[in-house]
Amino acid sequence: MITQVINVNEILKQALLFDFYGELLTDHQKEIYGQFLLEDLSLGEIARDAGISRQGVHDIVKRCEQALAGYEEKLHLVEKFMTVKNKVKQIDELLDEYEKERREDILSGIRILSGEIIEEL
Amino acid sequence: MITQVINVNEILKQALLFDFYGELLTDHQKEIYGQFLLEDLSLGEIARDAGISRQGVHDIVKRCEQALAGYEEKLHLVEKFMTVKNKVKQIDELLDEYEKERREDILSGIRILSGEIIEEL
Repeated sequence: MITQVINVNEILKQALLFDFYGELLTDHQKEIYGQFLLEDLSLGEIARDAGISRQGVHDIVKRCEQALAGYEEKLHLVEKFMTVKNKVKQIDELLDEYEKERREDILSGIRILSGEIIEEL
Repeated sequence: MITQVINVNEILKQALLFDFYGELLTDHQKEIYGQFLLEDLSLGEIARDAGISRQGVHDIVKRCEQALAGYEEKLHLVEKFMTVKNKVKQIDELLDEYEKERREDILSGIRILSGEIIEEL
């Protein structure tokens, strides 16, 4: 169960990195790694489609994972976007609370969050 | 006057690109281009400090500008951040309006913007 959660998080993380930095990969890398990551094809299936060895696909996948992780290590833009997205979700949650009590607290909460996001960007 | 505005916007744009993608430049490029862009030193001053020719500094600056523009052309992350930042500023402006009339309109406006931002990210 824990393993499954870790795997799911890992896949989501890889998909985010691919979404942010994928255009910095070569077209060939993008095609192979995209099939592996998004189309959930096995290394063997991808190898057959691409006419390369299973090991070749494996090497490309590893190289892409390293390249994308390297871009995030340098730029931290996925991390930055996730921080902002989380704050905006908190704004939405505060709006959901609006019909309840302490309306002014909620509005000042939104104000604080929006200010933090502007600082972040 | 128009020329000045264009120049200011151009400098801001270059500073944003450098802020987002600068870590993808080499240390040498970062140092030279950073001095040119952020410390407002002349090519001659930078050349003397770095012990290279004025032309060498000029070439590095041009190469950095092209590299950073190339990253934005592929990733569009500065554009994305600016869109989000603009929407959050609109949320702040709506909060400023709150004390006036049509409070529910303002809250639904914030809701729409925060939803758009979550879609964006």
